[in-house]
Parts: sequence; C-alpha cells; structure tokens
Amino acid sequence: MEYRIEKDTIGEVKVPADKLWGAQTERSRNNFKIGPAASMPLEIIYGFAYLKKAAAYTNCELGALPVEKRDYIAQVCDEILTGKHDDQFPLVIWQTGSGTQSNMNLNEVIAHRAHQLAGKTIGEGDKTLSPNDDVNKSQSSNDTFPTGMHIAAYKKITQTTLPGVKKLRDTLKKKSEEFKEVVKIGRTHFMDATPLTLGQEFSGYAAQLDYGIKALENTLPHLSELALGGTAVGTGLNTPKGYSKRVAEFIAKFTELPFTSAPNKFEALAAHDAFVETHGALKQLAVSLNKIGNDIRMLASGPRSGIGEITIPANEPGSSIMPGKVNPTQVEALTMVCAQVIGNDVALSVGGMQGQFELNVFKPVMAANLLQSAQLLGDACLSFNDNCAAGIEANTPRINEHLNNSLMLVTALNTKIGYYKAAEIANEAHKNGTTLKEEAVKLGHVTAEQFDEWVQPKDMVGGLK
Amino acid sequence: MEYRIEKDTIGEVKVPADKLWGAQTERSRNNFKIGPAASMPLEIIYGFAYLKKAAAYTNCELGALPVEKRDYIAQVCDEILTGKHDDQFPLVIWQTGSGTQSNMNLNEVIAHRAHQLAGKTIGEGDKTLSPNDDVNKSQSSNDTFPTGMHIAAYKKITQTTLPGVKKLRDTLKKKSEEFKEVVKIGRTHFMDATPLTLGQEFSGYAAQLDYGIKALENTLPHLSELALGGTAVGTGLNTPKGYSKRVAEFIAKFTELPFTSAPNKFEALAAHDAFVETHGALKQLAVSLNKIGNDIRMLASGPRSGIGEITIPANEPGSSIMPGKVNPTQVEALTMVCAQVIGNDVALSVGGMQGQFELNVFKPVMAANLLQSAQLLGDACLSFNDNCAAGIEANTPRINEHLNNSLMLVTALNTKIGYYKAAEIANEAHKNGTTLKEEAVKLGHVTAEQFDEWVQPKDMVGGLK
Amino acid sequence: MEYRIEKDTIGEVKVPADKLWGAQTERSRNNFKIGPAASMPLEIIYGFAYLKKAAAYTNCELGALPVEKRDYIAQVCDEILTGKHDDQFPLVIWQTGSGTQSNMNLNEVIAHRAHQLAGKTIGEGDKTLSPNDDVNKSQSSNDTFPTGMHIAAYKKITQTTLPGVKKLRDTLKKKSEEFKEVVKIGRTHFMDATPLTLGQEFSGYAAQLDYGIKALENTLPHLSELALGGTAVGTGLNTPKGYSKRVAEFIAKFTELPFTSAPNKFEALAAHDAFVETHGALKQLAVSLNKIGNDIRMLASGPRSGIGEITIPANEPGSSIMPGKVNPTQVEALTMVCAQVIGNDVALSVGGMQGQFELNVFKPVMAANLLQSAQLLGDACLSFNDNCAAGIEANTPRINEHLNNSLMLVTALNTKIGYYKAAEIANEAHKNGTTLKEEAVKLGHVTAEQFDEWVQPKDMVGGLK
Amino acid sequence: MEYRIEKDTIGEVKVPADKLWGAQTERSRNNFKIGPAASMPLEIIYGFAYLKKAAAYTNCELGALPVEKRDYIAQVCDEILTGKHDDQFPLVIWQTGSGTQSNMNLNEVIAHRAHQLAGKTIGEGDKTLSPNDDVNKSQSSNDTFPTGMHIAAYKKITQTTLPGVKKLRDTLKKKSEEFKEVVKIGRTHFMDATPLTLGQEFSGYAAQLDYGIKALENTLPHLSELALGGTAVGTGLNTPKGYSKRVAEFIAKFTELPFTSAPNKFEALAAHDAFVETHGALKQLAVSLNKIGNDIRMLASGPRSGIGEITIPANEPGSSIMPGKVNPTQVEALTMVCAQVIGNDVALSVGGMQGQFELNVFKPVMAANLLQSAQLLGDACLSFNDNCAAGIEANTPRINEHLNNSLMLVTALNTKIGYYKAAEIANEAHKNGTTLKEEAVKLGHVTAEQFDEWVQPKDMVGGLK
Repeated sequence: MEYRIEKDTIGEVKVPADKLWGAQTERSRNNFKIGPAASMPLEIIYGFAYLKKAAAYTNCELGALPVEKRDYIAQVCDEILTGKHDDQFPLVIWQTGSGTQSNMNLNEVIAHRAHQLAGKTIGEGDKTLSPNDDVNKSQSSNDTFPTGMHIAAYKKITQTTLPGVKKLRDTLKKKSEEFKEVVKIGRTHFMDATPLTLGQEFSGYAAQLDYGIKALENTLPHLSELALGGTAVGTGLNTPKGYSKRVAEFIAKFTELPFTSAPNKFEALAAHDAFVETHGALKQLAVSLNKIGNDIRMLASGPRSGIGEITIPANEPGSSIMPGKVNPTQVEALTMVCAQVIGNDVALSVGGMQGQFELNVFKPVMAANLLQSAQLLGDACLSFNDNCAAGIEANTPRINEHLNNSLMLVTALNTKIGYYKAAEIANEAHKNGTTLKEEAVKLGHVTAEQFDEWVQPKDMVGGLK
Repeated sequence: MEYRIEKDTIGEVKVPADKLWGAQTERSRNNFKIGPAASMPLEIIYGFAYLKKAAAYTNCELGALPVEKRDYIAQVCDEILTGKHDDQFPLVIWQTGSGTQSNMNLNEVIAHRAHQLAGKTIGEGDKTLSPNDDVNKSQSSNDTFPTGMHIAAYKKITQTTLPGVKKLRDTLKKKSEEFKEVVKIGRTHFMDATPLTLGQEFSGYAAQLDYGIKALENTLPHLSELALGGTAVGTGLNTPKGYSKRVAEFIAKFTELPFTSAPNKFEALAAHDAFVETHGALKQLAVSLNKIGNDIRMLASGPRSGIGEITIPANEPGSSIMPGKVNPTQVEALTMVCAQVIGNDVALSVGGMQGQFELNVFKPVMAANLLQSAQLLGDACLSFNDNCAAGIEANTPRINEHLNNSLMLVTALNTKIGYYKAAEIANEAHKNGTTLKEEAVKLGHVTAEQFDEWVQPKDMVGGLK
Repeated sequence: MEYRIEKDTIGEVKVPADKLWGAQTERSRNNFKIGPAASMPLEIIYGFAYLKKAAAYTNCELGALPVEKRDYIAQVCDEILTGKHDDQFPLVIWQTGSGTQSNMNLNEVIAHRAHQLAGKTIGEGDKTLSPNDDVNKSQSSNDTFPTGMHIAAYKKITQTTLPGVKKLRDTLKKKSEEFKEVVKIGRTHFMDATPLTLGQEFSGYAAQLDYGIKALENTLPHLSELALGGTAVGTGLNTPKGYSKRVAEFIAKFTELPFTSAPNKFEALAAHDAFVETHGALKQLAVSLNKIGNDIRMLASGPRSGIGEITIPANEPGSSIMPGKVNPTQVEALTMVCAQVIGNDVALSVGGMQGQFELNVFKPVMAANLLQSAQLLGDACLSFNDNCAAGIEANTPRINEHLNNSLMLVTALNTKIGYYKAAEIANEAHKNGTTLKEEAVKLGHVTAEQFDEWVQPKDMVGGLK
Repeated sequence: MEYRIEKDTIGEVKVPADKLWGAQTERSRNNFKIGPAASMPLEIIYGFAYLKKAAAYTNCELGALPVEKRDYIAQVCDEILTGKHDDQFPLVIWQTGSGTQSNMNLNEVIAHRAHQLAGKTIGEGDKTLSPNDDVNKSQSSNDTFPTGMHIAAYKKITQTTLPGVKKLRDTLKKKSEEFKEVVKIGRTHFMDATPLTLGQEFSGYAAQLDYGIKALENTLPHLSELALGGTAVGTGLNTPKGYSKRVAEFIAKFTELPFTSAPNKFEALAAHDAFVETHGALKQLAVSLNKIGNDIRMLASGPRSGIGEITIPANEPGSSIMPGKVNPTQVEALTMVCAQVIGNDVALSVGGMQGQFELNVFKPVMAANLLQSAQLLGDACLSFNDNCAAGIEANTPRINEHLNNSLMLVTALNTKIGYYKAAEIANEAHKNGTTLKEEAVKLGHVTAEQFDEWVQPKDMVGGLK
C-alpha cells in the first residue's frame, strides 16, 4: 500500500495515500484495535456533518470565517451526507471517551477533501482549510461529539423508532376492532379465568404502545438540546458572541428538526442524562413489546397441542428437521431485540453515571447503544408488523371450544348465589370432569333455566362500567 | 400459643387467636417462608386501606352495599391508616404474583376487626362482614393490588422522592450562586483543562436534577391511573354500573391526590409499564446523583494529597484506625443508594416484561422495588443535603494554586496565535516545569504584555455567548 | 426518653440510656436516616462477632491483649451470636461505604456490655475495654467489614442457598425417574415438536441445577479468603507479627468453616470481586430457576384451556373473585425472586466496579444484596420444592391426547422417505384437519402398515445414541 | 441484478444469481430487515463449518453418508474456514431464535458450492448434495446452533480474551515488582490514608485479574460441552447409534480444542446457562478492569492540578481545542468496553431466563453478546496493555511530596500513645496547616526524637505479618 506522511502536534504519521483522513485519525486507528473496524456509527458521522456545516455558517455570519472557507466546509459536509465518503471514517466506538478522534477524523477529512475540491492534491501547496483552526473553529470535541450524538439520536428516534412503533400500534388497534365480537376465555396466572373478547386483549397491547410512544415523546425536548457552543468545559471559550444560539438555529434549519441550544452547557458536556432518559423510554417499549410478543407466541401455539386461539402467517419453513412446522419467528426476533435493549439500558446507565468533573467520557458507548436500540426497535416493530401482526387471524373454533369448556364462567354466579356456592360448583365440575351446569343443578344452587340465563359469556365482557 | 380455627374454600386452618387475619392469610404465611416475615411494604397495605374504603363508598352509593357495612369497612380502613394494625399484615413480597394473599389479608382483617367493632369476638355469631362478598365486593386481587401499588407509589414519589430531590436541587442552585465568582481550573478526561467558575460547575449539578425532576414528573400521569373496576380480567365483571369512575373519585378524595380511572383496564392488569416508566426516571436520577456525588467526593479529596478544592462538613470520626480522618460518608451512602436503584431498575424490567395474557404476576416484586428506590432516593437526597451539600465551602487557596499553575490557560491564545503555537508553549512549559508566560515569551510567540492581557482566567469563563 | 452523654474525637453525643451503643453509632443513626432503621443485615453483625472474638484470641496469643480482656470480648461476642443483643445494632446499609460505623457499633456495644459483665454500669469508673484500643485492636473498618461480609456470605451460601437448591434438584431428579416412561409431545418455539418423555424434560431441569450448584461451589474458594490483617490499606499496619494467618485460623475454628487469610490484602480491601463472582453464580441459578418455573407453570396451565400435562398441588384458594381456581403461586414467588436476584446482580456490579485506590466504599450495599439473593434463592427453592415440585403429577390422559394428535410424529418418516415428502404429509394433515396416517397413505408415500411400524412415539425418545 | 429461482417446502423464491445461498436464506433476508445486514457473527458461521464437517465424517463413519458426499461437505467447510465465502452469510442476529435460518444458510451454501465443485452450475442437473437430507443429516437447528455457539465462544475466550487479560495481568505484575520500593500515600474514601508502596497497589490489580482469569477458566468445562446429537428436542431422533459422542470427537479433532458431548441434551437445547455462566465471568473481569482503569486514570491525573503520581504514555494529541493536553484515552476505551460488557450481561440473563419447554429461542442474541464481550475485553486489554500499562512510570517527586505532607502518618503513633492522642495531633496539624511533628511535640505527646524514630513511612508498609 502507498502512504503519505502527515503531521500533528506530536510528530509524523504514515497515512494510506488514498485516504482523506490525517495524522490523528491514523493514530487512533493504530492505537485502538478493539473490535471490528469502523464501528463508530455513521449516524454520528452524519450528525457531525450537519454541525460542522452549521458551525461554518455561524462563524462566517459572526465574522470569524471567510465565506469561501464556509462554502468549502459546507460542500464537503453535503457530500458526506450523501454517503459518498462513508469509507473515510475508520474509527471504532472504543476510542477516546469524548470522541475526540472522531471529531478530528471529520476535521481532517473535511480539510483534505476541500483541498481536492480546490483542485489540489493532498499535501500540495498551502492548506485550503486548517482542520483545527477552520473546520473545528469555535468547537471542541467536548461539545461537538454530544451535539453529533443528539442529532443522530433525535433523527433515529423520530424517523425510525417512532414510525415503526406507531405502525405496529395502529395494526394492533385495528385488530382490536376486528376482534371486538370474539368472546374468548381469559387467562390469569396462566390459568383459565373469566371471559373477555379477543379485541379487548388486543386493546391492551395497543394501549401499552400508546403509553410507550407517549413516554418516548416526553423525552424529545431534552434530546433536542445541543451542547454546541460550550467548547472545552462549557464556558464557550473561543466562540464568537451569539454563537451557541445561532449554531443551533442553523442545525435546526439544515436537519429540519427542532433543535435548540442547551440552556446549561456544563450539564450538556459532563452528563448525558438526556440519553439515559430517552433510552429509559426505549427500554419501557422493550418491556411492553416482550409482553405482547410473548402473548402472541402463546396464543398462536400449537398447531394441535397448544393454545391455538390465533393463527399467524407462515413466512418460512419452520424447522430444518421437523417438516410442516411453522414457528413464531417474528416474535422471536422481536423479543431478542427486547433482550438487547434491556441490556443496552444498563450499559447506558453505567456510562452515564461515571462522568467526572466537566466531562463524561463514555460518550461513544452511550451513543452507540442508544442508536442500536432505536434502530432495532423501529426495524423489529416494522418487521413484526408486516410479517406477523398484520396477518393475525382469530381461530374461532378453538376459541369457542375453550370458552365453552371453561369452569371460570361460574364467576357469573357470584353475585347471584355468593362466592362460596359458586366455588363449590366449580370444584365439583373440576373433580368430576363434568360441566358447570350439571353440577350447579345437581347441587341445587340454581335451576337449569337460571344457569342458562345467568351464565352468558357475552354478558361477562360488557366493557367497563 | 393459642389458636382458633378458620375456614376457607379448601378447608380448616389454625390461626393465632390474637390475630385479626383469617385462613387465607395464615395459609400464605405457612406456604411462603421466603425471606424475613412481613416484607410486603406497609405502604401497599395503606394503599389497600384507601381503596377498600373507596370501594365500600362506591358500592354503597350504587346500591350494592348497605350503609352500615360501608361504615364498618371505612372505620377499619381509617384505623389501618393510623398504623394501629401494622402487625396484622405478616405476609411477604414473595407470594402469589397477583398479591391475592395480601388482598385477602386486608379482607380478612377488615372483616374480623369490624366484628370486634360490632362488639363481638371473632367467630362469635353471624359475620358482621364477609371478607369476600362485602369487603372485596366489586373487586378482584387483580385490580386491587395494582391500585394499591399505584396509590403507594404516587404518594411516595410525590411526598418523599420529589421533596428530597428538590431540596437538594435548591441547595445546589444556591451554592452555584454563592460560588459564581470563584474561578477554578476545569477538568476534562480527569486532566487539567480550561477554567470555569465553581458556580458553573454546581449549576451543572442543579441542571441535572432539574431534568431528573422533570422526567419524574412526566411519569406521574400514567401512575395516577388506577386499575380498580377491572376486576378479574379487565372487563369489570361483577361491578355495578358507573363503578370504576366513581371509585377512582373516592380514592382521589380520600388521598387528596389526582387519581383517575385507567382508560384501558386490560393494560392496567396485564402490564405494569407505568411502574417501569416511573422507575426509569428514578434510575435517571440515580445516574445523575452518582455523578454529582462522585464529583463532590473528588473535589473534597485530601486533605493534603487530593484535589481539595472544596470542604465538606465533618460529621463523624472518619476512621477507626486513622485518627483525624474525615470521609465523604454522605456521598458514600448516596452512591450506594444509586447502585441499588440501578439494580432495582433491572428487577422491574425483568418483572414487567413477563406478564402473560390478562395478568402480570410480578406485581409485588415490582411494587417493592419501586417503593424502595423512591424512599431511598428521597431520604438519601435529604441526608446528603442536610449533612453534606448545605455545608460545602470553597477552599479558595487551593483553588487558586491549581488555577495559577495550570498549563491549560494557554487555550486563551488559540484565537490569537493559532492552535499549533499555543500547543508548543504548553508542551515546553510541561517539559521544563516552567510557566506558560516564560515559555511564551522565550519562544517569541507573544510579548509579556500580550500574555498578561490575553491570558486572564476570569475572561475565560464568561458564560455562554 | 432518658439519655446519657458519650464522647468521641469530635465531641459529645446524647445516647439513649438503655442502649449499649456509644457516640459513633448514635451519630450515624442521626446522620443517615435513609430507609427503614436497622437495615444492616444481622448476618453481618454476627460475622463481626466471630471476627472480633478471633481478633481478641489472636491478639492475646501474640501478646498484644491480656487474657482478661480477651475473655470479656469473647463472652460478649458469644452473647451477640445467640441473638440476645439484636436490638443494639440500629444502623442502616446506607452509611459510610466502608461500614466503619457498623464496625464502631460492634466496638462500642462490646466495650459497654463488657463493662456491665464486669459488674459496673455504663460510664461508671474506668473503662473495662476501650472500643478502639482493645476491641478494635489490630483491626480497621477496612479489613473487618469485608471479613464480616465474607463470613456472612459463606455461611448463607453453604447453609441456606446450597441446601435449598440441592433439595429441589433432588426432587426434580426423582421426578425425572418417576416420569421416565411418560412419552409426551415435545415443544420447540412453543410449537408442537417431536416427542420426548416427561422424565427427559425434568432431567433437563435437574441438569440445569446441577450446573448451577457446580458454578456456585466454584466461587467458594475466593469467598473463603478473609481480608482481616490488612487493616487500613492492606499493609497490615499495627498488627502483631503472624496476626493475619492466625486470626483466619481462629475464625475458621469458631465458625467451623474453611476460611483462610487472603493472599493479597490490597485486592481484598479495594475490590469485592469475590462477591461479584459468587453473585454471578446466584444470578445463573436465577436464570435457570426462572426457566424451570415458567415451564412448570405452563405445563400445569388450564385446567381446561391450557397445556395441562401436569398437575401441581392446590395450596390455597386461587382467586378472590373466581371460585375454584388454583394458581401456580409457588412458581410466581420463585420467579419474582429470580427477578430480584437478576436486579441485585446489577447493583453488585455497579458497586464492585467503583472501588477507588485502596478501598471499595460500596461494601454494605454489595453485602446486603448478596445476602438477600442468597437467602431468597434458598428459601424460594425450599418453598417451591415442598409446596409445589414434590407434588407434581403427570396428567396422563391429557399427555396422551396431545401426543396422539400431533403432526410432528411425521419426523419419524424423514429417514424413510426424505424431508420433503414428510413435510408434504404434515402440511396436508394440518390443512385438512386429518391424521398423519390418513394423508400419508392417501399421498402414497407409505402404506398403512409402514406408517404403523415406523411412526411409534416411544421409539422416538430412545435416549441419545 | 440477475436472479435464479429456488424452491423450498412453501414455494418459490428469487435469489440473486451470483449467490450460493438458497430459498430459505433469501426468505430470511427479506423477512428480517432488522439492523445492519449480515450481523450474525462470522465466528458462528465458522463454528457451523466445523460441525457440518464433523457431522459428515461421523455420518460417513456410521454408514449414513457416502464418502463422496462427506468429502464435498468437508471441502466446502474448509473453504468457509479460510474466509473465502464470508459474503455468503447475509443474515442477521434478529431472526428465528433457534438460528434455524443460519443453519439453513450453511446447508444451502454448502450444497450449492459442492455442486460447483462437482463442475456444475447451480440448478443444473441432479443435486450433488441435498441441503436437508445430506448436509443437515443427523442434525437440527436446535442442536447445531448451540454447538456452533459453543465452538465460537470457546475459541474466542481461549484465543482472544484469556491471552489479552493474561498479558495485561503479567504487565501489572511486572510493574508491581518494578514499583516495590516506591513508598506512597494510600487513599481510602478518596482521602489520604496510611502509606503503602506503589508496587503493593499494582499487586492488587494483578490479583484482581488473577481471580478473574481463574473464574473465567472455571466456566470452560461447561462451555466445552456440545449439544450436537440432540437434534430437535434432545432425544437424538434420526441420528445413527454412537453419533453424538463421535461427532464431538471429530469437532475436538478439527478445532484442536477439548470439546465433549453434553451429557444432558435436553438442558443443552432448552437452556444456555453455560453462556450465562461464562459471561458472568466476563462481567466480573469488566468490574475489575473498570476499577483498575479508573485508578490509573486518577493516579495519572494532572499534569499540575491532579494526583499525578504516575505518568502514562502520550499516544495522541489530547484535545482538539486545548493544546498540550494528554488524556488517558486507553483507560477510556477500556472502561467503555466494561460498560458494554456489564450491559451485555443483562441481555444474556434476559435471554437465558426465557427458554420455553424444549428450546431456548434467544440463541443468536445470547451468542452475539457473549462473542462481542469476549472480543472487546481481549482486544481492550491488549490495547490498554501495549499503549498504556506497559509504559506506566512512577512520578517520584510528586509521590514524595504527597507522602511527606500527609497527616495520616500519625497512625504509626496509635500503638505508642493510643488512638485518641494520635487523633489530637492530626487534628491540630490539619487545623493549623502545620506538620505532625510540630504538633506532636507541642502537645507533649512525644519528643522530636521519638517522632522521628516512630513515624517512618517505609516501616509502615512492611508487608503483611
């Protein structure tokens, strides 16, 4: 491979000749060989592209950067946002905890690429842009990385997670309407209980997601606050007057999202509670989805020796050894995602709790975990929705068989003959393998006519009064 | 010990003669010898007392219970709320996952105590109240226990947690004002960085708690929704018309808290996402408090070989072997509480994700963990506030020594002479153990006069522009 | 209340006159009002009693303490171990993170009680024992508290946890033998699969516990190592020559457990990885038990609309509203314990990872969580064993119904006619609601005789070859 | 793109013409668009390659597969192990929870590639190998995926994690020797305490890793047990006699690792406690490494306003805004890895606890998390070792300054003049900003000569007696 020589404040470094990055990126690549290369999420790189461009515009507007330099920076940032330079960001999550090296990766790539755009080859002639003095002007890793994190997370939550969860919620609501007349046995403690409708059951799932969506949306205001302008320790040292407010406005404009400048920059650098907060809501969604997924898996179990009250689409051959088997694979993918999100939540807590003084240095791990959770939940909801939930059907024969066999219909008699006599009837029927009606009449607690009048499953699900 | 014989639907049980509980409580006591006795939090018992009274009032108003019975129930509930019967609730957290047995414990104690209030001894004559048909009327464990959980949690959060956190937040804000002129060295990566004021540092702590309080308050609406009226599976079977709305109003009235009836009772029985949501915010507070506590511990470290920039009150002899040592004990208690809360959050997730069909049967463990976290955080904030935070003083001599020695003041020169020359000055001073000024002049990058004019710590903290 | 005046190095304190504790305990009681009083586990107090006695014997043997003082100390420690002074330890978990104040609580109680044993009232005449110079001789909180933790934990694991888990394992093994001829449908993905015996299913549960027991036992050597002799920072300052080895021998003698002196005292004070290690094994058991409990809950589900392949004992009336319902309450208690243990594991990690320099100051929270997990797991296994597992019966009619209906028996044909033809048979039977045999013959893939010969459930479970 | 048509039991699928996979892989690719493509770890694919080859050898040896087919399978597996077909495995972690689709991906790729090796193009003429009947012979996803997981994990732990941790442990041990004469101030509660040597401090770190290595090695026997031979539900249906033992022997031979056949195949399919167990030990290492990393970060803090008792290598420019700053970046990477591993542990617990009946369907998420943790810990230890730990130097001037200033040396006087007088000396010196000696003499507790004789830091670290 061919190399060129790059320099930084501590000396020379050999960089692959065909790459746009410089000395500091190359040092990081060599010093942090931890896990697969380029694990730093591209979403964060793109977040940086927005903010570098916004910083250039703000610096220019405030008289700190010439228009020509602004335009070079903006042009490269726009290129980055098309995905054209994705292979220029080789660094890993497991680097400096402030993300300094990814900030420098951006600074170096932008400066070198601008040089190319200016018609020169890298290293030739005077620098078009200085990575530190121009591209990083009025910035520090300490405020840029959290800004990039917030941009990436806000976009991911609003453009992937929420749409995915809402689509599934809508389907569950639709199913709840569709199944509103389907009376079925309820189950508590995994034991037969009094009846409800399948629609009511699904309305509970939809309600869970409604709450989860609300909880997630509650966290967006904190997430929309950007650290940029705090520079190294939150004081805004070396930024022009008016910078932090204006740069947030430019970011809002470029992203078309309602970002604002964080009112307290010290908090914004030293803590990432906004991420802890948002991921807490993602974790709540994981908890909800695990419950929903599990129920659907169990309701669809069988085909002959399970619960079998619903059917789900058969998307693939189920077993490599057992022919004809159709498995709840979408549920499995979904609940595995839930396990991951619940674990990621702890990683975020452990990172978030360990900030020290003016800086939290668990930024990359916190960012990567939140982005992963947000992506997986959004994708998994969509996949589960399209390939499973949307195709759920009630298996009415099975539902009726369960309903009519149930001993728990006896509860309808509680208000007529009291709890103890009702229990006696159920216990006798259970012991003898008979029907409730048989035993009710035999015990003399009700007449057959009374039984038929009083024990009506459809009257037992009548909605909340 | 003397015993009396009690009966339930499956037979006879010997109960200690002097206890108000009955057969089902006694069975549970014998069947679940797991951990220390009576671990079911009293807050939940009191939550039940509110709801049993409210149910009696509602049943009576709706024609389902005579005034006399209502008044007996209400009278016993009021007694329970005074703490008078605390020793009548011997059950543990680790029982039926719906809390059925604690519900029965309440039903039995209320019925027996009412019998005493009616002037009879337990077992004598006709029952004054039936535990199931009167005290539990229009109820199920499945809707009462979550209602009791929500009442207990809402009270605890609003009456213990939030006041504690807010008091600490106020103190930190006050300290932030008090220290607003104290310029000090900043630290990032635990390394010397550019200056800020001690007040700014504390403003970051206060901001963290502001966000945490906001996040916790965001969860209260979901927590204020009560399951009561759902009965066994959420359909409201065996409740009189209008019951669920009315019973929530009575609970709101008796507790003087804004409880409402949950719009979807299926969700309210089968999932406890409201608890997951609220505890998520408690966990966020734990993450914040751990950071704050750690910073204060480190800022106060010494007395001679640490950071030593603040002093904290000496509340006790610090060491049993090292005389004269004063330790950050309140920080230690606080951060241990944070560790517990972060762990409890996982316990709640694990419980919350495992609901099945119409019922989540991890209710007691979820309730106990949330109540513990809420109590500990409130108490620990108060203890930390009163015994530590309120007494924090700036150690100005030490602060100034650190500030004036610092190499990071060189950053002020970045905008004057560029990053690379500034770095050169700092590197030389570091290598030679000299001052920045000495090296700056020696290298010829600035004159002595320029240095004095440009490198002014107090100009480097000027707030965000 | 009456008070007496006690003094320590920072001044005077009023102590309740009837209590044996002194100034430092009282200060802690007042300064740490966090959660319920006296939450510091008694097991740790008892651990301290063993070690204080052992230290006295060692000090005496090595010429550092008179026999008379040794005997006073030993006598009080023996009294403490009978439980007689349980109400003299009012402190909470949430105190100094080294447990200093509980160490002083012991020192004070022992000194004061010795004074009483010497025939004097507290405060009268010369001190019989000095809390610091005699009772705490050759010790520091920093090495006593971890020693007390290890003693308490080792005892709890070996005397409560392991016996409980082993009893359950033995029962599951016994059941596995008992059910070894009961051929039943297997289930994978919660879907019908090829058959196995109920005994094989239970053998898997027993194997899980076998591994868990092994894993837990693997952690005992590390747990048996005691910090005592390290004093303040691990160097053993102020201990007589030979002390640390000898004191461990005395502790081993008094507890009748194989304790040894930790080879590296710096690790033993600054880290509690032994606790992290042991609790990791407890968490593994929780993971196993949750799986086992869930399976049993699901196998016992019904009575009419669930899986219903086993029956479990009916220990209590199951529902306060649904008569005749019998719930898997022991499973629910057990799985709630599992949720707690999985949460506690995170609390221990968070505490364990935050040691600083020569001391970890999350000792009490780590100790309390491990002791709780160890107790709950042991108790819950016992409770689940006695009240549930031991009474499990196979529900043979239901098992046979499921087995004979199953489409998955077709797998037996894979090796005869190939996977694709077998799948075709199963798919047809599923579609038409018919039997495998019918479709197999109709499709011409096998004759009726071949089917009967080849598809024999009992031949499909023949053990591993 | 060009496509060819592939078929499986439920119909036709279009597959990219240049790919070796078939219908089931393509279905999975389309049905599970969750997160980035091809996230299923290659280590598991390679694990499968070993086991498919071993199964072919065993089947052949036992008369169930012709030599020619065996050799085709083996040849493709060998190719896969060279990395040549890495782009043929496009599936994601978030698929069927049994990993069925990755098993089929292997079966299809092996069959198609064998067809190419036989000189034909895919789809041309008779199949060289049937994916199900030949490549998957005597196997099921349910036993192959866990086998692949175990092979991958065992290799990763023994070839990446353990070597990395051991290298770091060795360096810390070496440093401990190197620093054995360097007497320094100890710190407990982050406060100055009695002295120890820097070597002793490092010996504690080495001891932590020693314990962690031991704990991890304790888990290897369970991890070495393979599920293969259990097929669908653990009974070994459709395997030739002697298969499971023999196939494990072949795997051991091909991998040169001591794999054996799991004694209980029901446990091996339905639970992945071996993974929970191994990851528990990885988590313990993360807890240890976080402590060690933090200590080193704090010891190296400064350069002028921190602890500064050691220096660490400067590997890169530390700050994009603060020139001359050198940060503990390797510590930051290491502790971020620790946060991830602690989070992953919860993901594994959540997956492990949710097995149902004969199968745990959280296999891929459990496998991926363990492999990530094992890789990251091994890599991070190596990176931290080479780029940081190996270059740690004692900063002796600073160490001596701290030591000589310390008030805690007074502890040496405890055994001479008693705890209370010693405390008085320290308190006076602290109050007056004087030296211990000055105050000791002034208070008349010792003479100057006695002080000099008795208070000797180097006598206070003399090892454990």
